[in-house]
Amino acid sequence: MTYGAIAELAKQWVEEAGDLLRESLSNQSLKIEEKTNASDLVTEMDRSIEAFFVEKIREHFPHHKIFGEEGTYDDITDMSGFIWIIDPIDGTLNYVKQKSNFCSMIALFEDGEGVVSFINDVINNDIYMGVKGHGVFRNDDQLKPIPDHSINEGLIAISTKMVTKETAITQELVNDTLGVRLIGSAGLEMIQVLTNRVSAYVTNELNAWDIAQGYMMATELGLSFTTREGKAVNLLTKNPIVVANPKAHQEIISKFMKE
Amino acid sequence: MTYGAIAELAKQWVEEAGDLLRESLSNQSLKIEEKTNASDLVTEMDRSIEAFFVEKIREHFPHHKIFGEEGTYDDITDMSGFIWIIDPIDGTLNYVKQKSNFCSMIALFEDGEGVVSFINDVINNDIYMGVKGHGVFRNDDQLKPIPDHSINEGLIAISTKMVTKETAITQELVNDTLGVRLIGSAGLEMIQVLTNRVSAYVTNELNAWDIAQGYMMATELGLSFTTREGKAVNLLTKNPIVVANPKAHQEIISKFMKE
Repeated sequence: MTYGAIAELAKQWVEEAGDLLRESLSNQSLKIEEKTNASDLVTEMDRSIEAFFVEKIREHFPHHKIFGEEGTYDDITDMSGFIWIIDPIDGTLNYVKQKSNFCSMIALFEDGEGVVSFINDVINNDIYMGVKGHGVFRNDDQLKPIPDHSINEGLIAISTKMVTKETAITQELVNDTLGVRLIGSAGLEMIQVLTNRVSAYVTNELNAWDIAQGYMMATELGLSFTTREGKAVNLLTKNPIVVANPKAHQEIISKFMKE
Repeated sequence: MTYGAIAELAKQWVEEAGDLLRESLSNQSLKIEEKTNASDLVTEMDRSIEAFFVEKIREHFPHHKIFGEEGTYDDITDMSGFIWIIDPIDGTLNYVKQKSNFCSMIALFEDGEGVVSFINDVINNDIYMGVKGHGVFRNDDQLKPIPDHSINEGLIAISTKMVTKETAITQELVNDTLGVRLIGSAGLEMIQVLTNRVSAYVTNELNAWDIAQGYMMATELGLSFTTREGKAVNLLTKNPIVVANPKAHQEIISKFMKE
């Protein structure tokens, strides 16, 4: 099966999951639990959307491995073979508090390289799709490459708590930009970079399911996507990420390297 | 003319201005100038949309005064009589860099009290309207009152630069919330509070045209809207604003009063 054919199939799942998520917003009695703290939530919809994707993958690709935020995963100790990475709802706090500004994401990696990826901006009904060698699309429109530009010509997505808790370098970085914008969903922040609405996204440590889908798309679009030290991302562990056009990326990495 | 009749008329202007703004986004050669610095921009559309509103107001209400961001204003030394307050594009930096996340706003004040107000979320094609005594609407739907709740149960909109540059109180405030979200448009941040997507919006000093429209709507919806010291807003000068439900507002004001 070609990557394109896998993407066609997976797009149907993503659309169906989006329908379920939009319908769920009228559910007045959604079950919500705290995970690590009051801003780290999980709902019954996180679990049921993940189960939905897992069922589809098991049905069509019984030999592929699965790595999901809500705990559905095979024993994965390296990135060899085919691995699906699922974040059923990215931005669950927004899903609960805002009923918007969340997304649903899946990606397929082959031997450590992203080959198919989806980020569904559910409320705007925009499905972003990356297919290795074919580009990145918003619905039917192919995204254009981002012109290289400096961080002082653009906006940045970065967590306020990260800026206040971390070093002077992070504050200097923020002051070098035109301003901060923050949606509160890693997937949607990455979409902002992919569509050049912000010039960079800088994070503290994120898990594979938060970043794999944007990582695939950013790479396909020619953006730089590394750890804050400029190293290759390792999806088997947590990573603090910098994603940006190559020029802005280099500027940001250089700052962090001075620390 | 009743407030309702004025609102019906002004809604047509707001709709027409929204059409012009959406059309302008395909203009590849938009003229952009810096005002005070690289993140404070004005475009030819700011000026032409303001001129459009001014023309409509002068035609229908020749005796009303006008106060506009782009310099169209009568000699206003007090808030007596009828005063229109215009922000043709709120979030001009987003308009230029993101082609989204901006709004267009006008409000009418009578003897210092907001009586009619519009915030047009142009890209989402959502027009928010407040009419004194009649409530606040998103298109045809009336907004519901916000349940009183604590800042630690919600998100906050606050500028990252403000958090990094100001006192420990501001950082403590941020840490008391579930997280920060920031669109980069005062009008749209206020819409987030009015629709309970964030629980509070806290600003540094803003001008009348940035806040008057949200001030009218927040008051109509029963939210608290004051300076950071808890004092009444004075639209003849700049104000650092706190807008929130009464409980969260009191918590925030109490923090700033300790400074």
